[in-house]
Amino acid sequence: MQITIPIVRNVLERNENKANELRELFKEKNILVLNIISSPGSGKTSLLERTLSDLKDEFRFAVIEGDLQTDNDARRILETGSQVVQINTEGGCHLNADMIAKALESLDLDKVDILIIENVGNMVCPVEFDCGEHAKIAILSTTEGDDKPEKYPTLFSESKVMLLNKTDLLDYVDFSTETATTHARAINPDLKIFPISCTKKTGLEKWYAWLREFKKST
Amino acid sequence: MQITIPIVRNVLERNENKANELRELFKEKNILVLNIISSPGSGKTSLLERTLSDLKDEFRFAVIEGDLQTDNDARRILETGSQVVQINTEGGCHLNADMIAKALESLDLDKVDILIIENVGNMVCPVEFDCGEHAKIAILSTTEGDDKPEKYPTLFSESKVMLLNKTDLLDYVDFSTETATTHARAINPDLKIFPISCTKKTGLEKWYAWLREFKKST
Repeated sequence: MQITIPIVRNVLERNENKANELRELFKEKNILVLNIISSPGSGKTSLLERTLSDLKDEFRFAVIEGDLQTDNDARRILETGSQVVQINTEGGCHLNADMIAKALESLDLDKVDILIIENVGNMVCPVEFDCGEHAKIAILSTTEGDDKPEKYPTLFSESKVMLLNKTDLLDYVDFSTETATTHARAINPDLKIFPISCTKKTGLEKWYAWLREFKKST
Repeated sequence: MQITIPIVRNVLERNENKANELRELFKEKNILVLNIISSPGSGKTSLLERTLSDLKDEFRFAVIEGDLQTDNDARRILETGSQVVQINTEGGCHLNADMIAKALESLDLDKVDILIIENVGNMVCPVEFDCGEHAKIAILSTTEGDDKPEKYPTLFSESKVMLLNKTDLLDYVDFSTETATTHARAINPDLKIFPISCTKKTGLEKWYAWLREFKKST
Protein backbone atom coordinates (compact mmCIF):
# COMPACT_ATOMS: atom_id res chain seq x y z
CA MET A 1 0.00 0.00 0.00
CA GLN A 2 2.66 2.52 -1.04
CA ILE A 3 -0.09 4.95 -1.97
CA THR A 4 -0.95 5.59 1.66
CA ILE A 5 2.52 6.15 3.07
CA PRO A 6 2.69 9.99 2.74
CA ILE A 7 -0.91 10.26 3.87
CA VAL A 8 -0.29 8.15 6.93
CA ARG A 9 2.75 10.28 7.73
CA ASN A 10 0.68 13.48 7.66
CA VAL A 11 -1.98 11.98 9.89
CA LEU A 12 0.64 10.74 12.34
CA GLU A 13 2.44 14.11 12.42
CA ARG A 14 -0.80 15.92 13.13
CA ASN A 15 -1.55 13.39 15.86
CA GLU A 16 1.90 13.77 17.40
CA ASN A 17 1.47 17.55 17.65
CA LYS A 18 -1.83 17.13 19.44
CA ALA A 19 -0.35 14.44 21.71
CA ASN A 20 2.42 16.85 22.71
CA GLU A 21 -0.20 19.42 23.71
CA LEU A 22 -1.91 16.76 25.82
CA ARG A 23 1.38 15.83 27.45
CA GLU A 24 1.86 19.46 28.53
CA LEU A 25 -1.63 19.51 30.00
CA PHE A 26 -1.14 16.24 31.89
CA LYS A 27 2.17 17.53 33.29
CA GLU A 28 0.56 20.78 34.44
CA LYS A 29 -2.25 18.86 36.16
CA ASN A 30 0.15 16.22 37.57
CA ILE A 31 -1.85 13.36 36.02
CA LEU A 32 -0.31 10.00 35.18
CA VAL A 33 -1.75 8.67 31.91
CA LEU A 34 -1.75 5.03 30.80
CA ASN A 35 -2.91 3.74 27.42
CA ILE A 36 -4.18 0.13 27.68
CA ILE A 37 -3.99 -1.84 24.43
CA SER A 38 -4.95 -5.43 23.63
CA SER A 39 -7.10 -7.60 21.41
CA PRO A 40 -10.86 -7.59 22.00
CA GLY A 41 -11.68 -9.68 25.05
CA SER A 42 -8.23 -9.84 26.64
CA GLY A 43 -9.60 -8.31 29.81
CA LYS A 44 -8.99 -4.55 29.61
CA THR A 45 -12.25 -3.60 31.32
CA SER A 46 -11.93 -6.39 33.90
CA LEU A 47 -8.44 -5.14 34.75
CA LEU A 48 -9.79 -1.61 35.23
CA GLU A 49 -12.68 -2.81 37.38
CA ARG A 50 -10.23 -4.58 39.69
CA THR A 51 -7.57 -1.87 39.73
CA LEU A 52 -9.99 1.02 40.30
CA SER A 53 -11.83 -0.84 43.06
CA ASP A 54 -8.71 -2.03 44.85
CA LEU A 55 -6.83 1.30 44.70
CA LYS A 56 -9.69 3.76 45.07
CA ASP A 57 -8.49 4.90 48.52
CA GLU A 58 -5.02 5.70 47.11
CA PHE A 59 -5.74 7.40 43.79
CA ARG A 60 -8.51 9.34 42.07
CA PHE A 61 -8.97 7.60 38.72
CA ALA A 62 -10.61 8.68 35.49
CA VAL A 63 -11.15 6.45 32.46
CA ILE A 64 -11.64 7.16 28.76
CA GLU A 65 -13.33 4.16 27.15
CA GLY A 66 -12.89 3.52 23.43
CA ASP A 67 -15.24 1.22 21.54
CA LEU A 68 -16.71 1.01 18.06
CA GLN A 69 -20.20 0.91 19.55
CA THR A 70 -22.04 0.68 22.91
CA ASP A 71 -21.32 2.23 26.30
CA ASN A 72 -21.24 -1.16 28.04
CA ASP A 73 -17.69 -0.69 29.30
CA ALA A 74 -18.29 2.83 30.60
CA ARG A 75 -21.24 1.54 32.61
CA ARG A 76 -19.02 -1.13 34.17
CA ILE A 77 -16.41 1.51 35.11
CA LEU A 78 -19.06 3.83 36.61
CA GLU A 79 -19.76 1.12 39.19
CA THR A 80 -16.28 1.67 40.62
CA GLY A 81 -17.10 5.31 41.41
CA SER A 82 -14.50 6.72 39.01
CA GLN A 83 -15.07 9.44 36.43
CA VAL A 84 -15.56 7.92 32.99
CA VAL A 85 -16.25 9.08 29.45
CA GLN A 86 -17.10 6.84 26.50
CA ILE A 87 -15.83 7.43 22.96
CA ASN A 88 -17.67 5.54 20.20
CA THR A 89 -15.44 5.47 17.12
CA GLU A 90 -18.28 4.18 14.89
CA GLY A 91 -16.02 1.83 12.99
CA GLY A 92 -12.69 3.50 13.75
CA CYS A 93 -9.99 1.04 14.78
CA HIS A 94 -8.09 3.16 17.30
CA LEU A 95 -8.26 6.26 19.49
CA ASN A 96 -6.15 9.31 18.62
CA ALA A 97 -5.05 12.48 20.39
CA ASP A 98 -7.91 14.57 18.95
CA MET A 99 -10.47 12.15 20.37
CA ILE A 100 -8.75 12.21 23.76
CA ALA A 101 -8.71 16.03 23.78
CA LYS A 102 -12.44 16.05 23.05
CA ALA A 103 -13.15 13.46 25.77
CA LEU A 104 -11.18 15.43 28.36
CA GLU A 105 -13.81 18.19 28.13
CA SER A 106 -16.16 15.82 29.99
CA LEU A 107 -13.75 15.16 32.88
CA ASP A 108 -12.85 17.28 35.92
CA LEU A 109 -9.06 17.00 35.61
CA ASP A 110 -8.46 18.74 38.92
CA LYS A 111 -9.85 15.64 40.60
CA VAL A 112 -7.73 13.07 38.76
CA ASP A 113 -4.43 11.43 39.78
CA ILE A 114 -4.37 8.68 37.18
CA LEU A 115 -6.11 8.75 33.79
CA ILE A 116 -6.49 5.43 32.03
CA ILE A 117 -7.30 5.22 28.34
CA GLU A 118 -8.91 1.91 27.38
CA ASN A 119 -8.23 1.77 23.67
CA VAL A 120 -10.32 0.02 20.99
CA GLY A 121 -9.76 -3.75 21.09
CA ASN A 122 -7.05 -4.13 18.47
CA MET A 123 -3.45 -5.24 18.80
CA VAL A 124 -2.20 -3.27 15.81
CA CYS A 125 -3.52 0.21 14.98
CA PRO A 126 -3.79 1.80 18.47
CA VAL A 127 -0.02 1.41 18.89
CA GLU A 128 0.60 3.92 16.09
CA PHE A 129 -1.39 6.77 17.64
CA ASP A 130 0.23 8.55 20.59
CA CYS A 131 -2.44 9.86 22.96
CA GLY A 132 -0.01 11.80 25.18
CA GLU A 133 0.30 8.89 27.62
CA HIS A 134 3.26 8.19 29.91
CA ALA A 135 3.14 4.48 29.12
CA LYS A 136 1.38 1.95 26.95
CA ILE A 137 0.28 -1.16 28.83
CA ALA A 138 -0.23 -4.34 26.79
CA ILE A 139 -2.54 -7.13 27.87
CA LEU A 140 -2.05 -10.61 26.45
CA SER A 141 -4.39 -13.34 27.62
CA THR A 142 -3.38 -16.98 27.78
CA THR A 143 -6.25 -17.97 25.48
CA GLU A 144 -4.75 -15.97 22.58
CA GLY A 145 -1.68 -18.15 22.15
CA ASP A 146 1.95 -17.78 23.20
CA ASP A 147 3.03 -16.77 19.67
CA LYS A 148 1.44 -13.32 19.77
CA PRO A 149 4.46 -11.26 20.93
CA GLU A 150 6.42 -12.70 17.99
CA LYS A 151 3.59 -12.15 15.47
CA TYR A 152 2.49 -8.69 16.68
CA PRO A 153 5.80 -7.26 17.90
CA THR A 154 5.03 -3.52 17.75
CA LEU A 155 2.70 -3.50 20.74
CA PHE A 156 5.25 -5.31 22.89
CA SER A 157 8.19 -3.17 21.78
CA GLU A 158 6.27 0.03 22.59
CA SER A 159 4.81 -0.99 25.96
CA LYS A 160 6.36 -0.65 29.41
CA VAL A 161 4.27 -3.46 30.90
CA MET A 162 2.75 -6.69 29.60
CA LEU A 163 -0.01 -8.08 31.79
CA LEU A 164 -0.40 -11.78 31.09
CA ASN A 165 -4.08 -12.25 31.92
CA LYS A 166 -6.33 -15.31 32.32
CA THR A 167 -3.63 -17.38 34.01
CA ASP A 168 -6.53 -19.28 35.65
CA LEU A 169 -7.11 -20.90 32.23
CA LEU A 170 -3.53 -22.14 31.77
CA ASP A 171 -4.56 -25.72 32.54
CA TYR A 172 -7.07 -25.73 29.69
CA VAL A 173 -5.16 -24.05 26.86
CA ASP A 174 -1.99 -24.77 24.92
CA PHE A 175 0.06 -21.80 26.14
CA SER A 176 3.65 -21.64 27.33
CA THR A 177 4.31 -18.68 29.63
CA GLU A 178 8.01 -19.18 28.99
CA THR A 179 7.60 -18.95 25.20
CA ALA A 180 5.48 -15.80 25.40
CA THR A 181 7.86 -14.21 27.91
CA THR A 182 10.99 -15.12 25.96
CA HIS A 183 9.61 -13.68 22.71
CA ALA A 184 8.32 -10.53 24.40
CA ARG A 185 11.67 -9.90 26.13
CA ALA A 186 13.56 -10.52 22.87
CA ILE A 187 11.56 -7.62 21.38
CA ASN A 188 11.76 -5.44 24.48
CA PRO A 189 14.32 -6.40 27.16
CA ASP A 190 12.96 -3.76 29.58
CA LEU A 191 9.36 -5.02 29.43
CA LYS A 192 7.83 -5.70 32.86
CA ILE A 193 5.72 -8.86 32.73
CA PHE A 194 3.10 -9.60 35.38
CA PRO A 195 1.02 -12.82 35.19
CA ILE A 196 -2.46 -12.08 36.55
CA SER A 197 -6.01 -13.38 36.66
CA CYS A 198 -8.64 -10.68 36.94
CA THR A 199 -11.42 -13.19 37.59
CA LYS A 200 -9.50 -15.07 40.32
CA LYS A 201 -7.83 -11.85 41.57
CA THR A 202 -4.31 -13.30 41.54
CA GLY A 203 -1.02 -11.58 40.74
CA LEU A 204 -2.48 -8.09 40.89
CA GLU A 205 -0.33 -6.84 43.82
CA LYS A 206 2.81 -6.72 41.65
CA TRP A 207 0.94 -4.67 39.05
CA TYR A 208 -0.30 -2.32 41.75
CA ALA A 209 3.23 -1.99 43.16
CA TRP A 210 4.53 -1.08 39.70
CA LEU A 211 1.72 1.47 39.28
CA ARG A 212 2.51 3.13 42.64
CA GLU A 213 6.21 3.37 41.78
CA PHE A 214 5.53 4.66 38.27
CA LYS A 215 3.15 7.32 39.62
CA LYS A 216 5.85 8.51 42.01
CA SER A 217 8.45 8.66 39.24
CA THR A 218 6.41 10.87 36.90
CA MET B 1 -10.62 12.18 12.36
CA GLN B 2 -12.49 14.09 9.65
CA ILE B 3 -9.18 14.84 7.98
CA THR B 4 -8.85 11.27 6.78
CA ILE B 5 -12.29 10.73 5.30
CA PRO B 6 -11.57 11.70 1.65
CA ILE B 7 -8.23 9.92 1.81
CA VAL B 8 -9.79 6.75 3.10
CA ARG B 9 -12.40 6.95 0.35
CA ASN B 10 -9.69 7.10 -2.33
CA VAL B 11 -7.83 4.15 -0.87
CA LEU B 12 -11.05 2.13 -0.65
CA GLU B 13 -12.06 2.98 -4.22
CA ARG B 14 -8.68 1.91 -5.53
CA ASN B 15 -8.97 -1.28 -3.49
CA GLU B 16 -12.46 -2.00 -4.80
CA ASN B 17 -11.29 -1.71 -8.40
CA LYS B 18 -8.51 -4.19 -7.77
CA ALA B 19 -10.90 -6.50 -5.89
CA ASN B 20 -13.22 -6.51 -8.91
CA GLU B 21 -10.33 -7.60 -11.12
CA LEU B 22 -9.60 -10.42 -8.69
CA ARG B 23 -13.25 -11.46 -8.70
CA GLU B 24 -13.13 -11.81 -12.50
CA LEU B 25 -10.00 -13.94 -12.23
CA PHE B 26 -11.49 -16.19 -9.53
CA LYS B 27 -14.63 -16.66 -11.64
CA GLU B 28 -12.60 -17.56 -14.73
CA LYS B 29 -10.60 -20.12 -12.71
CA ASN B 30 -13.70 -21.41 -10.88
CA ILE B 31 -12.11 -20.80 -7.47
CA LEU B 32 -14.16 -20.22 -4.32
CA VAL B 33 -12.51 -17.58 -2.14
CA LEU B 34 -13.09 -17.11 1.59
CA ASN B 35 -11.67 -14.30 3.73
CA ILE B 36 -11.27 -15.42 7.37
CA ILE B 37 -11.29 -12.56 9.88
CA SER B 38 -10.99 -12.57 13.67
CA SER B 39 -9.01 -11.24 16.60
CA PRO B 40 -5.50 -12.59 17.12
CA GLY B 41 -5.65 -16.04 18.67
CA SER B 42 -9.29 -16.87 17.89
CA GLY B 43 -8.18 -19.97 16.03
CA LYS B 44 -7.93 -19.03 12.33
CA THR B 45 -4.90 -21.20 11.65
CA SER B 46 -6.25 -24.07 13.76
CA LEU B 47 -9.49 -23.97 11.76
CA LEU B 48 -7.52 -24.14 8.52
CA GLU B 49 -5.37 -27.00 9.75
CA ARG B 50 -8.49 -29.02 10.57
CA THR B 51 -10.48 -28.06 7.47
CA LEU B 52 -7.64 -28.64 5.00
CA SER B 53 -6.74 -31.98 6.56
CA ASP B 54 -10.30 -33.26 6.79
CA LEU B 55 -11.38 -32.18 3.28
CA LYS B 56 -8.17 -32.72 1.34
CA ASP B 57 -9.67 -35.61 -0.65
CA GLU B 58 -12.58 -33.41 -1.76
CA PHE B 59 -10.97 -30.08 -2.62
CA ARG B 60 -7.60 -28.68 -3.63
CA PHE B 61 -6.95 -25.83 -1.21
CA ALA B 62 -4.59 -22.87 -1.31
CA VAL B 63 -4.02 -20.44 1.55
CA ILE B 64 -2.78 -16.85 1.69
CA GLU B 65 -1.50 -16.14 5.20
CA GLY B 66 -1.42 -12.55 6.49
CA ASP B 67 0.68 -11.60 9.51
CA LEU B 68 2.65 -8.58 10.66
CA GLN B 69 5.72 -10.77 11.06
CA THR B 70 6.86 -14.43 10.92
CA ASP B 71 5.93 -17.30 8.63
CA ASN B 72 4.83 -19.53 11.53
CA ASP B 73 1.30 -19.92 10.20
CA ALA B 74 2.39 -20.70 6.65
CA ARG B 75 4.61 -23.47 8.01
CA ARG B 76 1.64 -24.95 9.88
CA ILE B 77 -0.46 -24.88 6.69
CA LEU B 78 2.32 -26.49 4.62
CA GLU B 79 1.98 -29.58 6.83
CA THR B 80 -1.51 -30.15 5.40
CA GLY B 81 -0.07 -30.47 1.89
CA SER B 82 -1.88 -27.40 0.55
CA GLN B 83 -0.31 -24.59 -1.45
CA VAL B 84 0.43 -21.62 0.79
CA VAL B 85 1.95 -18.15 0.52
CA GLN B 86 2.79 -15.84 3.41
CA ILE B 87 2.29 -12.08 3.35
CA ASN B 88 4.14 -10.10 6.03
CA THR B 89 2.51 -6.69 6.33
CA GLU B 90 5.37 -5.35 8.51
CA GLY B 91 3.04 -3.44 10.77
CA GLY B 92 0.03 -3.18 8.44
CA CYS B 93 -3.25 -4.02 10.12
CA HIS B 94 -5.08 -5.72 7.22
CA LEU B 95 -4.63 -7.34 3.83
CA ASN B 96 -5.87 -5.58 0.70
CA ALA B 97 -6.56 -6.53 -2.91
CA ASP B 98 -3.12 -5.41 -4.14
CA MET B 99 -1.41 -7.68 -1.62
CA ILE B 100 -3.63 -10.59 -2.67
CA ALA B 101 -2.87 -9.98 -6.37
CA LYS B 102 0.85 -10.06 -5.59
CA ALA B 103 0.53 -13.23 -3.50
CA LEU B 104 -1.40 -15.01 -6.28
CA GLU B 105 1.76 -14.88 -8.43
CA SER B 106 3.20 -17.53 -6.11
CA LEU B 107 0.27 -19.94 -6.46
CA ASP B 108 -0.68 -22.34 -9.27
CA LEU B 109 -4.32 -21.31 -9.62
CA ASP B 110 -5.10 -24.08 -12.09
CA LYS B 111 -4.72 -26.50 -9.17
CA VAL B 112 -6.99 -24.70 -6.70
CA ASP B 113 -10.69 -25.29 -5.91
CA ILE B 114 -10.87 -23.20 -2.74
CA LEU B 115 -8.60 -20.30 -1.82
CA ILE B 116 -8.66 -19.22 1.80
CA ILE B 117 -7.29 -15.85 2.88
CA GLU B 118 -6.28 -15.81 6.55
CA ASN B 119 -6.33 -12.11 7.30
CA VAL B 120 -4.23 -10.25 9.90
CA GLY B 121 -5.57 -10.84 13.43
CA ASN B 122 -7.81 -7.80 13.84
CA MET B 123 -11.57 -7.58 14.21
CA VAL B 124 -11.85 -4.08 12.69
CA CYS B 125 -9.71 -3.00 9.73
CA PRO B 126 -9.70 -6.16 7.55
CA VAL B 127 -13.48 -5.85 7.18
CA GLU B 128 -13.07 -2.60 5.20
CA PHE B 129 -10.84 -4.06 2.49
CA ASP B 130 -12.50 -6.27 -0.10
CA CYS B 131 -10.07 -8.90 -1.36
CA GLY B 132 -12.38 -10.21 -4.10
CA GLU B 133 -13.70 -12.97 -1.83
CA HIS B 134 -17.08 -14.70 -2.15
CA ALA B 135 -17.62 -14.55 1.60
CA LYS B 136 -16.10 -13.24 4.78
CA ILE B 137 -16.01 -15.80 7.61
CA ALA B 138 -15.85 -14.46 11.17
CA ILE B 139 -14.40 -16.44 14.04
CA LEU B 140 -15.36 -15.54 17.59
CA SER B 141 -13.89 -17.59 20.41
CA THR B 142 -15.66 -18.15 23.70
CA THR B 143 -12.71 -16.68 25.62
CA GLU B 144 -13.22 -13.26 24.02
CA GLY B 145 -16.57 -12.53 25.66
CA ASP B 146 -20.17 -12.74 24.46
CA ASP B 147 -20.38 -8.94 24.00
CA LYS B 148 -18.12 -8.81 20.95
CA PRO B 149 -20.81 -8.95 18.20
CA GLU B 150 -22.48 -5.94 19.85
CA LYS B 151 -19.22 -4.04 20.32
CA TYR B 152 -17.64 -4.85 16.94
CA PRO B 153 -20.74 -5.10 14.73
CA THR B 154 -19.18 -4.50 11.30
CA LEU B 155 -17.46 -7.86 11.06
CA PHE B 156 -20.65 -9.71 11.93
CA SER B 157 -22.84 -7.68 9.57
CA GLU B 158 -20.46 -8.35 6.66
CA SER B 159 -19.85 -12.05 7.22
CA LYS B 160 -21.86 -15.01 5.91
CA VAL B 161 -20.71 -17.34 8.70
CA MET B 162 -19.70 -16.94 12.33
CA LEU B 163 -17.71 -19.85 13.71
CA LEU B 164 -18.00 -19.86 17.49
CA ASN B 165 -14.70 -21.50 18.43
CA LYS B 166 -13.24 -22.86 21.69
CA THR B 167 -16.57 -24.27 22.87
CA ASP B 168 -14.48 -26.77 24.87
CA LEU B 169 -13.67 -23.86 27.23
CA LEU B 170 -17.30 -22.88 27.88
CA ASP B 171 -17.19 -24.43 31.36
CA TYR B 172 -14.29 -22.19 32.38
CA VAL B 173 -15.28 -18.78 31.00
CA ASP B 174 -18.14 -16.37 31.54
CA PHE B 175 -19.68 -16.63 28.07
CA SER B 176 -23.32 -17.02 27.04
CA THR B 177 -23.73 -18.59 23.60
CA GLU B 178 -27.28 -17.29 23.57
CA THR B 179 -26.19 -13.68 24.19
CA ALA B 180 -23.52 -13.80 21.48
CA THR B 181 -25.92 -15.47 19.03
CA THR B 182 -28.78 -13.09 19.74
CA HIS B 183 -26.58 -10.01 19.26
CA ALA B 184 -24.96 -11.38 16.11
CA ARG B 185 -28.36 -12.27 14.57
CA ALA B 186 -29.75 -8.81 15.48
CA ILE B 187 -26.96 -7.32 13.36
CA ASN B 188 -27.23 -9.91 10.59
CA PRO B 189 -30.34 -12.12 10.52
CA ASP B 190 -28.88 -14.31 7.73
CA LEU B 191 -25.68 -15.12 9.60
CA LYS B 192 -24.94 -18.86 9.85
CA ILE B 193 -23.55 -19.69 13.28
CA PHE B 194 -21.63 -22.91 13.91
CA PRO B 195 -20.29 -23.68 17.41
CA ILE B 196 -17.02 -25.59 17.05
CA SER B 197 -13.91 -26.67 18.90
CA CYS B 198 -10.85 -27.04 16.69
CA THR B 199 -8.81 -28.64 19.48
CA LYS B 200 -11.52 -31.19 20.40
CA LYS B 201 -12.66 -31.53 16.76
CA THR B 202 -16.34 -31.01 17.53
CA GLY B 203 -19.02 -29.26 15.46
CA LEU B 204 -16.90 -29.14 12.33
CA GLU B 205 -19.20 -31.30 10.17
CA LYS B 206 -21.82 -28.54 9.92
CA TRP B 207 -19.15 -26.08 8.81
CA TYR B 208 -17.92 -28.58 6.22
CA ALA B 209 -21.49 -29.14 4.98
CA TRP B 210 -21.95 -25.39 4.57
CA LEU B 211 -18.64 -25.16 2.71
CA ARG B 212 -19.62 -27.96 0.30
CA GLU B 213 -22.98 -26.31 -0.43
CA PHE B 214 -21.44 -22.86 -0.86
CA LYS B 215 -18.82 -24.22 -3.24
CA LYS B 216 -21.58 -25.79 -5.35
CA SER B 217 -23.57 -22.55 -5.41
CA THR B 218 -20.72 -20.35 -6.71
